[in-house]
Amino acid sequence: MSKPLHLHPDRLFSSDPTQRAISRELYKTVANLPIISPHGHTDPSWFADNECFQNATELLIIPDHYVFRMFYSQGIKLEDLGIPRIDGGEVETDYLKIWHILAENFHLFHGTPSSIWMNFVFSEVFGFTEVLCPENAEDYYHKINAKLTSEAFRPRALLERFNIELLATTEGATDDLKHHAKMKGTGVDNTVITTFRPDDVTDPERLSFMANLETLADLTGENVTSWSGYLNALRSRREVFRAHGATATDHGHPSAFTADLSKADCEKLFSIVLSGKATPEQAELFRAQMLTEMAGMSCEDGMVMQIHPGARRNHNKKVFERFGFDKGCDIPGRTNFVEDLQPLLSKFGTESDLRVILFTLDESAYARELAPLAGHYPCLKLGPAWWFHDSPEGMLRYRHNVTETAGFYNTVGFNDDTRAFLSIPSRHDVARRIDCRFLAQLVTEHRITEEAAHDLAYDLSYRLAKEAYQLTK
Amino acid sequence: MSKPLHLHPDRLFSSDPTQRAISRELYKTVANLPIISPHGHTDPSWFADNECFQNATELLIIPDHYVFRMFYSQGIKLEDLGIPRIDGGEVETDYLKIWHILAENFHLFHGTPSSIWMNFVFSEVFGFTEVLCPENAEDYYHKINAKLTSEAFRPRALLERFNIELLATTEGATDDLKHHAKMKGTGVDNTVITTFRPDDVTDPERLSFMANLETLADLTGENVTSWSGYLNALRSRREVFRAHGATATDHGHPSAFTADLSKADCEKLFSIVLSGKATPEQAELFRAQMLTEMAGMSCEDGMVMQIHPGARRNHNKKVFERFGFDKGCDIPGRTNFVEDLQPLLSKFGTESDLRVILFTLDESAYARELAPLAGHYPCLKLGPAWWFHDSPEGMLRYRHNVTETAGFYNTVGFNDDTRAFLSIPSRHDVARRIDCRFLAQLVTEHRITEEAAHDLAYDLSYRLAKEAYQLTK
Amino acid sequence: MSKPLHLHPDRLFSSDPTQRAISRELYKTVANLPIISPHGHTDPSWFADNECFQNATELLIIPDHYVFRMFYSQGIKLEDLGIPRIDGGEVETDYLKIWHILAENFHLFHGTPSSIWMNFVFSEVFGFTEVLCPENAEDYYHKINAKLTSEAFRPRALLERFNIELLATTEGATDDLKHHAKMKGTGVDNTVITTFRPDDVTDPERLSFMANLETLADLTGENVTSWSGYLNALRSRREVFRAHGATATDHGHPSAFTADLSKADCEKLFSIVLSGKATPEQAELFRAQMLTEMAGMSCEDGMVMQIHPGARRNHNKKVFERFGFDKGCDIPGRTNFVEDLQPLLSKFGTESDLRVILFTLDESAYARELAPLAGHYPCLKLGPAWWFHDSPEGMLRYRHNVTETAGFYNTVGFNDDTRAFLSIPSRHDVARRIDCRFLAQLVTEHRITEEAAHDLAYDLSYRLAKEAYQLTK
Repeated sequence: MSKPLHLHPDRLFSSDPTQRAISRELYKTVANLPIISPHGHTDPSWFADNECFQNATELLIIPDHYVFRMFYSQGIKLEDLGIPRIDGGEVETDYLKIWHILAENFHLFHGTPSSIWMNFVFSEVFGFTEVLCPENAEDYYHKINAKLTSEAFRPRALLERFNIELLATTEGATDDLKHHAKMKGTGVDNTVITTFRPDDVTDPERLSFMANLETLADLTGENVTSWSGYLNALRSRREVFRAHGATATDHGHPSAFTADLSKADCEKLFSIVLSGKATPEQAELFRAQMLTEMAGMSCEDGMVMQIHPGARRNHNKKVFERFGFDKGCDIPGRTNFVEDLQPLLSKFGTESDLRVILFTLDESAYARELAPLAGHYPCLKLGPAWWFHDSPEGMLRYRHNVTETAGFYNTVGFNDDTRAFLSIPSRHDVARRIDCRFLAQLVTEHRITEEAAHDLAYDLSYRLAKEAYQLTK
Repeated sequence: MSKPLHLHPDRLFSSDPTQRAISRELYKTVANLPIISPHGHTDPSWFADNECFQNATELLIIPDHYVFRMFYSQGIKLEDLGIPRIDGGEVETDYLKIWHILAENFHLFHGTPSSIWMNFVFSEVFGFTEVLCPENAEDYYHKINAKLTSEAFRPRALLERFNIELLATTEGATDDLKHHAKMKGTGVDNTVITTFRPDDVTDPERLSFMANLETLADLTGENVTSWSGYLNALRSRREVFRAHGATATDHGHPSAFTADLSKADCEKLFSIVLSGKATPEQAELFRAQMLTEMAGMSCEDGMVMQIHPGARRNHNKKVFERFGFDKGCDIPGRTNFVEDLQPLLSKFGTESDLRVILFTLDESAYARELAPLAGHYPCLKLGPAWWFHDSPEGMLRYRHNVTETAGFYNTVGFNDDTRAFLSIPSRHDVARRIDCRFLAQLVTEHRITEEAAHDLAYDLSYRLAKEAYQLTK
Repeated sequence: MSKPLHLHPDRLFSSDPTQRAISRELYKTVANLPIISPHGHTDPSWFADNECFQNATELLIIPDHYVFRMFYSQGIKLEDLGIPRIDGGEVETDYLKIWHILAENFHLFHGTPSSIWMNFVFSEVFGFTEVLCPENAEDYYHKINAKLTSEAFRPRALLERFNIELLATTEGATDDLKHHAKMKGTGVDNTVITTFRPDDVTDPERLSFMANLETLADLTGENVTSWSGYLNALRSRREVFRAHGATATDHGHPSAFTADLSKADCEKLFSIVLSGKATPEQAELFRAQMLTEMAGMSCEDGMVMQIHPGARRNHNKKVFERFGFDKGCDIPGRTNFVEDLQPLLSKFGTESDLRVILFTLDESAYARELAPLAGHYPCLKLGPAWWFHDSPEGMLRYRHNVTETAGFYNTVGFNDDTRAFLSIPSRHDVARRIDCRFLAQLVTEHRITEEAAHDLAYDLSYRLAKEAYQLTK
């Protein structure tokens, strides 16, 4: 039995009438600001080729690990959701059947951000007026598929419709950037830029690390078997990325561990790594040293450094072996920023040209470590609530825990960090609403003035992201 | 000077009028649902023998470590509270005098769940209309004692009056289950079931571990000095427990550490354990392996596995030496679920028949570890806020931290986990009120519909507990 | 453009009308209670000499690490803020120019406690009616400087105006206490007392540790190169401090680690420490043993022991080398109270005369470790939200996390812990408002009665601090 789908204009605001009224006023001023999305994982080929998306299931379920991890947790097999197997083994290919699984289990998302994001996409992007349910699932499916073939739903048209002023994708260091190259001169290259993510060539425990180094050598002409040649190759790739718009690098290590070894020790460690015989401790030390090297290069070339530590990747080994990376089985663990970052900060922490943006999956670090660090070191800023915490409650906890020690101006606005392109407006909408809600609470408690709240709403929704990622030139 | 004792119908709801009104509506629909209590520590002899309780102090103070730990923290000696000494040394036996201590210090419980539970018992179970105070303490004491001798206060009558549909007690692996045996055929055996708690024979650091193994051998006829005989003995006890209604096992280890050793290593480790010379590390490894063994047996026999890690037992050595276990000096510590559970999960985590319910005393793990784990692994569910966190604030933090990542349907409803029988209705009442409050907040913020909230209120109050503990057959 | 500076009478209360009304009622009864400030860092020479303060910048910016750390984090050099360099190198001496930096960057404090404290000082202490801004900065500066020269702004006059009943300063073990000596007989010695802080002679990693021991020997006539002479010297200094009003000791170790070594091991460890060759582990063990020794001396002489663990001091080495201690680069880290305190608690935890007050920078320990410990051990009490958490949100988190397990009566009221003398009334005002807000919430949710809330508001604002620090004699 279908029910009306209605996005309430006051959604995510406090039910307290005083707070709600101020939230509304603040939100009105930022609701239509352009979207700055300085960190994410959309596919650049979409914007380079501007082909139509093909299918509701392929676009909205199969790539969304928030969605299929919830189904998997409730006993639905990934095969039955059409998630491709590494060995090419059989999985469900009837996309309508998979779409029905979504409709039948939509209640599993009650209280989660996925229900917010998906209902926004259904209502605001596709114009549905009924909540998805088994009865209307087929109708939903066909209507979405029909719309996807229209001009208005081509990727570049959606970029414009979504009012996206800037969108950063993320590519590995050995990516040829051909999609970004193809965008050059089309106009969309002013909107879509790349980000330099070197983990595949700086983390010896990555699959194909040695092969990646060979590709790195091929791309740069450097002798990557020497420490200095390896560093030069990275410098050279950073330059190429900058030529494709990149203003930032991104580093997704298991921990925030950094090191500051002598050149001789670096060379020794690098040769162990090249031998393929590095112990886990040596691999961790190498990653640690590479964060410091990357910070050094950022001092040279001005790229903003993002550190995203703390995910224990591929925790479910059987899922990893069968389905590969990014299949919803990355689990956060504790992170120790205070001790782990000290080597990097001792070396570069007072360089006025360095900017490092820190993210965490360990919220206990917000008030204890991250806000005190960002409220002191000139080079450090705090990225927004991330991944599992990119949600109404997660964002509120972030503001409540961070603001008193770091202030607002050591934070960098919002990142959507998504590969779910259609959800980008919804994610920014959630962030803007929650920020307005938090500011409204401060106003009603006479902790900031309403005028300050207006300035801050603009800053948090738009200005800080542009400035932090140096997108203002 | 006595004051009126009045349980406000809106207690524990938000004072926001919109939220309060919805909370009321939701609560109305679940307030009178039967109680499912799938995990607790009431004494099965009560229900087997159905004898009258004897005395207010003996029933409400002496067994309640929440109560006497607070008094002890304020300098009142455990001896003066009548807590029995291990050496049989003298303690206060004037129960009225002890009751006066409660009356004189009742203000110490301001803001704690103990005051909620006790006032509920006084008001709803015993019908008092004045708050306990020194002036009415004696009257209270005698009135309670008088009621306890009446038919209406016999254990089975209370089970019925409390609308308890199911109550699980917890017995050690070597318990003879005579009380549960006595219940057979009385009808109460449909209500009161046991739970298999093998810590006494799986934790080499337990007092009397070796003697417990001998009892295990006697009970099962197995040769428990061989690894396979020991495992068979455990299998055999699990079967006996299932015959007395058990659907679940329970494991209260200091950590969540699990291991997956080869059979040869298990045999070697077991022989070290049997020699009585296991180091603390070997004892921890043995416990770790035993959690994995228990998970394997759960795959075989379908029992639900509960893991309750994180208590540092008997932290105050002097109290432990004088008064023994469970005397309010167990203190929580950090728990690392992500690394610790991986061996067990790697082996059995994708078995469709396994169900493991996780509890924690380390709330920082809710959003960082537990919700991501439960939101991925099909075998994992999250138990409710536990022990120190079985309280209005604790329950609210649980819902706020867990829901966005794990959803509601990877949680298992409420456990009261209590030995304080009379407080069971109050504890479930608190849980239902807080869940309705949380749901009402989501409704007023337009994050779920009112209709969804009604379904969820029922599920959280009743259905999920029955399903998670497989009580639906 | 200047804006009105107005401290709203309902500031920091919830915007919920029911809660706000009760908060107001409660606050009215405690707003004017005398201030008990049992832990802080004001300069005793102020009260001994009673000289006028000199300058706005010197009084309100240069000593306030909350202020200059925020500016530093935003790229303003400490030199430009007039922070003195260790090497005597040049720093800004134009105090008006520095004052302008404050005015131009005042928005950085939006949402932080610094803006609350400073606006209170500007409005209530100096009578300004406009918010500080670049346009009125010079006027502000000169008006403050003019007031500072008046009789009404001398330190003793302010003590009286601020209604400070008791103010504890903190001095190192080798301090000659000449300022406190000078106060004797002036009347102000009934108000201003000292606190014994022995870290400089108990922590082998302190700068000048060996020189400090020599001073200790000189002051006491003890042979501090023998373990027993060293302990006697400490006993002797404690006695001198008590003669200058001290009722408490304070210990600011990196961790809460305690030890209970044999006398022979103590002597051996002490001789290693004296040799200057202690490893970091031996230094940590020595600090650990010294906490236990200090607890033993507290059992003897009745001084209340405060443990303030968890700061990783001087994290930014370059700032430390140039500017020294307390320059805003102390960063909190994790603290493990449960294991770390056990040796001390095993030895002295059940002594009825011992009182230990615990503080933390690691809020994850509130509900997990500190409330359970304080809710059990008679000797333990919890200090208030500390340092980075001495803020509206920090105080609320403290009450929400601590109360249900520890109750109110295992907490000790408020500490301002400040060297910013003029901010003391504001800091206590914030604490009283937040406590009234928290109590009002409990009342509106029918968790405590309004009458209990009135008692508690008084206790939390005034009585508990006096009792916990034994200031009632």
